[in-house]
Amino acid sequence: MHVVRCKVCKEHEAILKLDTYRLNLCQGCFDDFVLRRTKKGIRDFKMFGHSERILVAVSGGKDSLGLWDVLVRLGYKADGFYIDLGIKDYSAESKRLAREYADKNGLTLHVRSVPDDFDGLGIRDIAWRTRRKPCSVCGTLKRHLMNRIALDEKYDVLATGHNLDDEVTTLFGNTLHWQVEYLGRQFPVLPAVDEGLQRKVKPLIYLGEKEMAAYVMVRGIPYIYEECPMAKGASSLFYKDVINQLEAHSPGTKLAFLKGFFDLRERFRTEQERPTLTSCTRCGTLTTTEVCAACRLKERLAPPTDAGGVD
Amino acid sequence: MHVVRCKVCKEHEAILKLDTYRLNLCQGCFDDFVLRRTKKGIRDFKMFGHSERILVAVSGGKDSLGLWDVLVRLGYKADGFYIDLGIKDYSAESKRLAREYADKNGLTLHVRSVPDDFDGLGIRDIAWRTRRKPCSVCGTLKRHLMNRIALDEKYDVLATGHNLDDEVTTLFGNTLHWQVEYLGRQFPVLPAVDEGLQRKVKPLIYLGEKEMAAYVMVRGIPYIYEECPMAKGASSLFYKDVINQLEAHSPGTKLAFLKGFFDLRERFRTEQERPTLTSCTRCGTLTTTEVCAACRLKERLAPPTDAGGVD
Repeated sequence: MHVVRCKVCKEHEAILKLDTYRLNLCQGCFDDFVLRRTKKGIRDFKMFGHSERILVAVSGGKDSLGLWDVLVRLGYKADGFYIDLGIKDYSAESKRLAREYADKNGLTLHVRSVPDDFDGLGIRDIAWRTRRKPCSVCGTLKRHLMNRIALDEKYDVLATGHNLDDEVTTLFGNTLHWQVEYLGRQFPVLPAVDEGLQRKVKPLIYLGEKEMAAYVMVRGIPYIYEECPMAKGASSLFYKDVINQLEAHSPGTKLAFLKGFFDLRERFRTEQERPTLTSCTRCGTLTTTEVCAACRLKERLAPPTDAGGVD
Repeated sequence: MHVVRCKVCKEHEAILKLDTYRLNLCQGCFDDFVLRRTKKGIRDFKMFGHSERILVAVSGGKDSLGLWDVLVRLGYKADGFYIDLGIKDYSAESKRLAREYADKNGLTLHVRSVPDDFDGLGIRDIAWRTRRKPCSVCGTLKRHLMNRIALDEKYDVLATGHNLDDEVTTLFGNTLHWQVEYLGRQFPVLPAVDEGLQRKVKPLIYLGEKEMAAYVMVRGIPYIYEECPMAKGASSLFYKDVINQLEAHSPGTKLAFLKGFFDLRERFRTEQERPTLTSCTRCGTLTTTEVCAACRLKERLAPPTDAGGVD
């Protein structure tokens, strides 16, 4: 039987083919590839140094657990942060997996719960009651809680597991609608605005979905396989499919699209990039408005007919 | 049986559904729709006036014949220009159809032939001998011949039948590869550079492929149905398919993508937009180089081993 050899070590049997790079790799060389691609991302965009305290946003999925694992192996001081979104089975299972990984590796995992903060309500109910889209509510609350914990626990950097496919998908959607404001802000490093809004980084910028799935499998890390049930029918899933067709038609398209964008991203930056930030009058988080987005959500939840509302 | 009525006149039976506009139209109202959309394009981009002499590039396909027909019906002074590219049956048939339309409507059609100008060679042979892609050679020669005839015959404007789908496809490809230079130049009107390079316009910017096919059918204009045989496998055909998926997923995407781009196109303009133009030392056409692109093609065709070369 014909055995495909690893193109790097030329010794072991290849277990994975990376189409973008026309590269067949064995388990060891693939592992090395993931570490090197992550290091390259961190270095290219000057994300952080070994002396800084990093907080990894952990969802329990392949990307965030994989990122945490890679950062720890690369010798970075990385703790985890899990947010329970109150999405029934999905949240219970993903929390269990995040906890399991932390415990097994003797790492610190901070946990915050949206229902604890919102009278027992999860994302679905909050979205329903405030008439907003679940993904929008989820984003608002995640950003809020991440900023808070980074401030409270004095972390220098917030790292998220957004991979190449995620970033290309976001860029694709923003380009298709020419969302200039979003385009101006899309970058793997967003510098700290003030001590209340820490630097945000995406170290997996050079690694795709497929690579990250293979990485956690090779490393034997159990992760939650399902997409978030609230994301069903989201345009992003449709865009991912379209982008994969473009990549199949011409391997390397994703990476070239994203890198080409970074080269000219300045063209989308606008003058009033930096709005004035003040402390939220309710919770103290830095915000551009008097009351921050999370506190405004809470206020909208207070039922007008009920005298004993949330606030 | 259930008959779908025209949404505009509410009287006649609808013959076509325009998904983008959620509009069912009868034959008469559809015809009116095409005229109005063309007028809107001409007006929005200040393309030309009724006193100007327009030269329509006619390929024999639905878009260019449809455009010519619409312009004449709108009362514009529009002559046609057909270029025989020397692509065997395809050229013979498309020339016959262009001629037929002109004769039937008593219109002036200028004809130029690439083989006449290139020792009997067609696009395929020129591409092969100069080791360039056929579509690139074709574009170079078309531009060259159009500029020449506009100069010789004193036309004010050159109009091409690029429709909404064509423009969206070009924009999509240029965006995917972030071709800043091309992006800076993509617009439905390119102003005259000098008296040797006339204004170029694309009056069908607001009309899609499907609409133009329906228009020529409704008008009973015979046109060449086949895609150019040299375009087979071109990325543009693949992109069109992808873009149609995006449009089906969210009707209106094409138009919004293109219009949104026009709004921010200035961001892609570079300083050295206007290179110095001089007359080609061989043929006199305005060019940025000493010898124009068409004459350079001719020079590259001269076989180095053959003493009696083309030049």
